[in-house]
Amino acid sequence: MPIIQRPRGTRDFGPEEMGKRRYIEGVLRTTAETFGYREIATPTFEHAELYTERSGEAIKNEMYMFKDKGGRELSLRPELTMPTIRFYAEELRNKSKPIKVYYFGNCFRYERPQSGRFREFWQYGAEVIGGGEHESDADIIALAVNSLENAGLKKFVTRIGHLGVLRALLWEIGIEGEKQSKCMQLIDKKDTEELFTILNAHSPSNLGIDRIRELLELKESKTVLKEARKIVAGNRKALKAIESLDKILTTLGLLGIENFIIDLGIARGLDYYTGMVFEIDVPTLGAEKQVCGGGAYELAELFGAESTNSTGFAIGFDRVVMALERQKAEIPTNRITAYVIPLDGKARNEAMKIATALRKSGISCSTALLERNLSKHMKHANAICAEYVIILGEDEIAEKKASVKNMETGEQVKVDFEKLLNHFNSTEKD
Amino acid sequence: MPIIQRPRGTRDFGPEEMGKRRYIEGVLRTTAETFGYREIATPTFEHAELYTERSGEAIKNEMYMFKDKGGRELSLRPELTMPTIRFYAEELRNKSKPIKVYYFGNCFRYERPQSGRFREFWQYGAEVIGGGEHESDADIIALAVNSLENAGLKKFVTRIGHLGVLRALLWEIGIEGEKQSKCMQLIDKKDTEELFTILNAHSPSNLGIDRIRELLELKESKTVLKEARKIVAGNRKALKAIESLDKILTTLGLLGIENFIIDLGIARGLDYYTGMVFEIDVPTLGAEKQVCGGGAYELAELFGAESTNSTGFAIGFDRVVMALERQKAEIPTNRITAYVIPLDGKARNEAMKIATALRKSGISCSTALLERNLSKHMKHANAICAEYVIILGEDEIAEKKASVKNMETGEQVKVDFEKLLNHFNSTEKD
Repeated sequence: MPIIQRPRGTRDFGPEEMGKRRYIEGVLRTTAETFGYREIATPTFEHAELYTERSGEAIKNEMYMFKDKGGRELSLRPELTMPTIRFYAEELRNKSKPIKVYYFGNCFRYERPQSGRFREFWQYGAEVIGGGEHESDADIIALAVNSLENAGLKKFVTRIGHLGVLRALLWEIGIEGEKQSKCMQLIDKKDTEELFTILNAHSPSNLGIDRIRELLELKESKTVLKEARKIVAGNRKALKAIESLDKILTTLGLLGIENFIIDLGIARGLDYYTGMVFEIDVPTLGAEKQVCGGGAYELAELFGAESTNSTGFAIGFDRVVMALERQKAEIPTNRITAYVIPLDGKARNEAMKIATALRKSGISCSTALLERNLSKHMKHANAICAEYVIILGEDEIAEKKASVKNMETGEQVKVDFEKLLNHFNSTEKD
Repeated sequence: MPIIQRPRGTRDFGPEEMGKRRYIEGVLRTTAETFGYREIATPTFEHAELYTERSGEAIKNEMYMFKDKGGRELSLRPELTMPTIRFYAEELRNKSKPIKVYYFGNCFRYERPQSGRFREFWQYGAEVIGGGEHESDADIIALAVNSLENAGLKKFVTRIGHLGVLRALLWEIGIEGEKQSKCMQLIDKKDTEELFTILNAHSPSNLGIDRIRELLELKESKTVLKEARKIVAGNRKALKAIESLDKILTTLGLLGIENFIIDLGIARGLDYYTGMVFEIDVPTLGAEKQVCGGGAYELAELFGAESTNSTGFAIGFDRVVMALERQKAEIPTNRITAYVIPLDGKARNEAMKIATALRKSGISCSTALLERNLSKHMKHANAICAEYVIILGEDEIAEKKASVKNMETGEQVKVDFEKLLNHFNSTEKD
C-alpha cells in the first residue's frame, strides 16, 4: 500500500508549535473578552450560495466545494464574516443590541501553496452589529490594534480610510454599479494605470478625474484629512465621509490608539464594505504583509434582517504567528513540570502514586512508561522539556526521599515523599 | 434571493453556549497537560484513502468527500486517530519515545441528524505511541477517567476488557481473518443470535462455542478475571491476554482509578484494536450513552513506520457537554465585568477613557455604543451578563466619581475615577 501523506498545502502542528499557537490564540481571545466581545462559532462548511451569491462565481475557483446527499452544494468556509451575519439573521437578531462577537476558526482556500498562504488557515475576528457608527468603528479598530499589541507584535502599520470618499468622487463623474466595483478593485490592487484608462475612457470631466488622482496621491499622514477636504471641496457626500472618519479617529484617540496612518486609498476587495475601512500590515512579511483587514459593511439585509450598522475585522492568525517568529518574540511554551523516573520495579509503584498525587494538585507530570537506564531517561526528560525529574532508585525508596533534579540548573536535592507536593507548589509560585 | 440557512445537521454556537464549551474544553485540555500529554493538530481534511484503505469502502457512505484539482479524493476527517498516526509516521517517529499527545478537534460524519449525533462534532482524545504496554494502557485509561471527572461528570461507567481473550477463543475454533472481524462486529453490536448462527454453522466444536458463550455471559464485575481464567483454561493466548489485562488494572489502581468494571465482551467496531479496550458510558444519555472509546492498536506499520505499542482514546465532546447539561452541572460562563454607561456627550469621552484603563489592567468591559436612556442601558447590561455597570451622568462628571452598581445585589456606590481600577481589582480577588 502506498504511504499516505498529508494533503498538499495543509499542515500538521507538533507539540512545540501548538504550544505557541495556543498561547497566541489565548492572548487574542482574552483581548476580545476584555473588550466585552463574546465568542461564537459557526459550522466548518456552509451552503455554497452563502458566498457565491454575494461574491460572484469567481470565488468558486478558490473554494472547496462538495455536494451533500440532497444534491445541495456545500463549501468549506473561505472566511467568517458571512457565516457570522447568517447566524445573526437566523438567531442573534433578537438579542439586545449592539451585538459584539468574536470568533477564532479555520478557513479554507484552494490556492497555490506559498509562503504565508495555506489551504487551511486560521482567522481571528470580531464584529459589532447594531451599534452607533463611529463608536462601533472605533471599538473594532481599537480591538484589532490591542489584540496585535498584546500578542507582542512590534512594528505594524495601521492604515485607516473611508470608502465613502472615493465612491463619492466616482459617483460625481457618473461611475456607479459594477463599473464602480471594478474601479474599487483596481484601486485595491493599486493598479492606477488600468484605473485611469477606464476613467478617461468613461468620463468627460478632467476635473473629476484629477480629484481622484490627487486623493490617491495624498501621502499617508495624520494631516491628510485637511488636504482631502480641499480636494473634494463641494462634493457633499465626500465631505460627509471625511467628517465621519474624523469622528471615528477622535473616538479612537479616546480609546488610546494614536499610532495609525490615514489612507484614503484603501478600497478593500469586497463589495459589501460601505464606510470606514482599515488594514494592518507587518512590512517584514513582504508580499504577505497584510495581517488584518476590516471595516463597516451592510450584509444583514441580504439575509432578510433589517439593515443595521455593522463593522468588523479579520486577522490572519498564521501570519501573526509568522511575524512573531520573525521578530523572535518570546512565546512561552507550556512545559511539563516533572518527569518521574523509577529505576526498578519496586520504585515503579511509588512513581505512579507520586505522579497521581502531583497531578491531583494540578502539577503536570509524566511517569516513565518504558523501562530503561537513567541516562536514557534523562535524555527523554530533556526531549519532552520537563522542568524537573524525580528519580526513584533503591536508596530513595529505602529513605522515602525522592531525588529531585532541576533540569535547567542541574541542582539536585532530596525531598521527603510527603513533602514533594509542597516542594513543587512553592517552586511553581516562584 | 432566498434566505440562506445553516446546513442541516450542523450547529451555530452563541456566546452562552460557547462560554460553556470553552470552559469544559479547557478542563479537558488542562487534564491532558497535567498528565504530561502535549497537544497536536492535523488538517481538517485528509486523503480519503487514509480512511478507506483501512476501514473499507463502507465508511465512504458516511464521509464527506470531494476532489482537489489534481483529482485526488479528499475527505473531511471522520475521526482523529488515523491522522495522528499518519502524522507520527511522517514526522513524530524520530522524536524521543514514548510520544504522548492529545488533540481537540472537529470531525464530520454524514449521518441522519438526531439527538446526540451531529454532522460536525468535536472529539477530544489522546494517544501514547511507543510506551510499555501495561503502563501506557493504564495511563490512557486514567487520563480518560480523570478528564471526565474533572469536567464534573457524575455517574459514568468505565468498562475495561481485552480483545485478546475473545480473539483467542475464536482462533481456537478456526475463525480468523474477515470472518473473525465479522464476529467481533456482531459482539460489538451485542447481536448474539447472529453470532451463534455463524459460529454453529462454522465450527464442529461445541466446547469452543460454549466457552465463548460463557465468556460473554460473565457478569461485569471485579472478580470476573478469576472466572474467565477457568472458562479459557488451556488456551494459552487467552490466558496471556487475561494476565495482561490484570497487570493493566493493577497499574490503574496505583494511578488512583478503582471505579471500573471488567467486561470481556467489549469488541470495538474497528479492526485495528489489538489488546486492551475500554468504553465509558453515561447511562442517562440513552441510545447515545457512550462518551468514550479506546484501546491498544497497531497502525504505525500501515504508514511505513516500525511496529510499536500504541494506545489511545477519543471522547465525544458534544455528548459530554450534553451529559453535563442533563445533570445540571454548574458550568461557569465568562461574564463581562463592567458595562460603562455615559448619559450624555461629555460623559462619553470619560467613558472611553475609563474603559481603556480598565481593559489595560485586564478587567473586561464594554462601553455603550448606542445613545439611549438609562433604563434601556440597564436592560442591555443585563442581557450581556455584565456584573457591574458604571454610570456616568452630569453629577458623576462634575464630582469625578462614577456610580458603580452591582447587577446581582443591586448595591450602588460612588467611586472616585482614580480609584476605579483598585475598586475592581479588589472585587475581582474576592
